[in-house]
Amino acid sequence: MSATAITTTRGCQNALVERFNRGSCATKADLLAVEEPLEIRLAYGPAGARKSKPISVTMRTPGSDAELAAGFLMTEGVIHNRADIDSIEAGPLSSAAAEKLHCHSSGNIVTVELAPSVQVSLDSLQRNFYTTSSCGVCGKSSLRALRTICPPRRANDFSIGSATLCALPEKLRHAQGIFDQTGGLHAAGLFTASGDLDSMREDVGRHNAVDKLMGAALLADRVPLRNRLLLLSGRASFELLQKAVMSGVPMVAAVGAPSSLAVEMAREFDVTLVGFLRGDHFNVYHGASRIHAGEPAALRQ
Amino acid sequence: MSATAITTTRGCQNALVERFNRGSCATKADLLAVEEPLEIRLAYGPAGARKSKPISVTMRTPGSDAELAAGFLMTEGVIHNRADIDSIEAGPLSSAAAEKLHCHSSGNIVTVELAPSVQVSLDSLQRNFYTTSSCGVCGKSSLRALRTICPPRRANDFSIGSATLCALPEKLRHAQGIFDQTGGLHAAGLFTASGDLDSMREDVGRHNAVDKLMGAALLADRVPLRNRLLLLSGRASFELLQKAVMSGVPMVAAVGAPSSLAVEMAREFDVTLVGFLRGDHFNVYHGASRIHAGEPAALRQ
Repeated sequence: MSATAITTTRGCQNALVERFNRGSCATKADLLAVEEPLEIRLAYGPAGARKSKPISVTMRTPGSDAELAAGFLMTEGVIHNRADIDSIEAGPLSSAAAEKLHCHSSGNIVTVELAPSVQVSLDSLQRNFYTTSSCGVCGKSSLRALRTICPPRRANDFSIGSATLCALPEKLRHAQGIFDQTGGLHAAGLFTASGDLDSMREDVGRHNAVDKLMGAALLADRVPLRNRLLLLSGRASFELLQKAVMSGVPMVAAVGAPSSLAVEMAREFDVTLVGFLRGDHFNVYHGASRIHAGEPAALRQ
Repeated sequence: MSATAITTTRGCQNALVERFNRGSCATKADLLAVEEPLEIRLAYGPAGARKSKPISVTMRTPGSDAELAAGFLMTEGVIHNRADIDSIEAGPLSSAAAEKLHCHSSGNIVTVELAPSVQVSLDSLQRNFYTTSSCGVCGKSSLRALRTICPPRRANDFSIGSATLCALPEKLRHAQGIFDQTGGLHAAGLFTASGDLDSMREDVGRHNAVDKLMGAALLADRVPLRNRLLLLSGRASFELLQKAVMSGVPMVAAVGAPSSLAVEMAREFDVTLVGFLRGDHFNVYHGASRIHAGEPAALRQ
C-alpha cells in the first residue's frame, strides 16, 4: 500500500501513491520534488598553506550545485565577486555512502576553491555558520552579527510599471518546469524593468533557489545586479531580503507575505519590497516611488 | 510613500502600505507577521563546572519562546524528555541592542538550564550545529550525521478515518489567529485520532512552528506522542519529518507537497505521510494502512 520509487531524474522522482478521494482509494503515479543534502566545502589560503573545511550542509534539489555554492558564499558575505573563486568542483560520494544517505545522485559534495588572495577568517566563518537551520538565519553566532555583513545602501533609479509587475508571476510559473509537476518547489527569478525574464532557479528550499539564482549571476560576473528585480514564488523573509541586498538588486517582489523584519531590512537598505503580488494587485511595503501606476502594459506598447 | 510601522503587538505588527489595484494606488493599513531573531543558549554540566554557550539563532515570531527552545533541543536530539531540563529563562536585550537589531520585544534570548546529569558533548554539539540555514538541516557537519540522531522505528497502531482527516486543515485554519490577519505564518497542529485539535502553534518559520508545538508537549511531559497526528499548513520536508520522528508521532499530514527525502524518512521510520490534504482528497506516500476509508464523518456519528 505504500508509495514506491520507480525512477529518479534530476529535480523530480516518480513514486506510486495511494490517492484518497471522497472516501475511495486508488493507486496512482506521482512526482516528488527531489530533496538531497549538499555539503559545501571551502578551500582557501595562500599557496603552500591551503586549508579545506566543510562549512555547510543544505537540503537542496540537485542541479546548479556550483551556482548554489557560489551564491551562498556571496550572499553570506564570504566572497564578493567572480574573481574570488578559482574553481568549483563537485565531488562524488562513494556508492556505500550514497546508499546510506538515500542519495540518488552521486555528486552531493561541492568544493569551492577560493583565490589565494581572498581573506577568510576561520574564526568569523565558524561564528557565521554556527547556527541552525530551523530558521532562516545564515550564520550568526550572536544577534549582533545579524546585520553586519550587508553592504551600505546605494542610490538606484530602477523603476517598473505596475501592469508589467503584475504580469511577472505568470511568467515565472510558465518558466517553472518542475513545479507544475510536483507542486513542491520554490522558484526565484530575475526580471528586467520591461518585464523580461532574465533567469530562474527552483529548489525545495526557497533560500537555495535564491542562492542558485544569485550564484549564476556571480559566476557570470554580473553582480551587483543593479537593474534587475528579484521575484519570489513564496513569502519574503529577512534572510531573503539579506540575500537581495548582498546581490545589489533594487527591488524584491513576493507572491506571498513579507515578514516584519523583511520590511525593516527593505527600508534600511532602500530596496523596494512588494508583497501579495497576485492577479492585478499588490502591496508595496517600501519604495513605491520605483513603481509607476498607469495603463496596462498592452496599451503602453 | 513607504510603509510605516504604527504599533507592535506580539505576533503581528501594524503597517501602512501602498496598495496597487488595477493601476490605481491607495494607502491602507496592513498587518505584518513579526519576525525577530531568538538566540538559544544552553547551560549544562555538573554543579561547580557549569558551562554556558549560545547554540542557535533562529528567526522566529515572538511568543512560546521557551517551548521553541525546548522543542528545538528535543527534535535535534540534544535532550530527550522533560527531566533533562532544569529551567528555561528568557533574558532581555539591552535597549541599545534591541534598537540596533530592530527588535521590538525585549526578550530575544532564551537560556535553557539542563539538569547536571545530562551529557552534552560540546564537540558533537558544535558539529551538530555547524551548518547553515538556507536549508533545513539542523546541525550536521557531515552528510553522514544527517540520519544518526533519530530513534529507531516503533510499532504503532494509530489510525484515522479519511473523512476525519479531510476535516483537519479547516480546523487548523480556524484555530489560527494570526495567519488570517497577516497571511504570513505557518501553522503546525497536533490532532487526536478522532479529529480533535490537541494543540497548535504558528511561526514565520515552519520549523519553528513544529518546534514550539513539540516543545510544549515535552514541557508537559507528553513525549513521545504516540497517539497524535501532526498537521502542517505547508510542505513536508526531510527536516520536518525528522522532528516528527524525534517526537514519536506516527502520522504526518501536510497541506502541501512532500519532498523525496521526506517520503524516504517516512518509510524508514514507518511514519504515515499524507500530502496535498485539500478538500475531500489527499495522497498517502507511506503507511496508508493507518487510514480507513469510508463514509463521511457526519454519517458515522
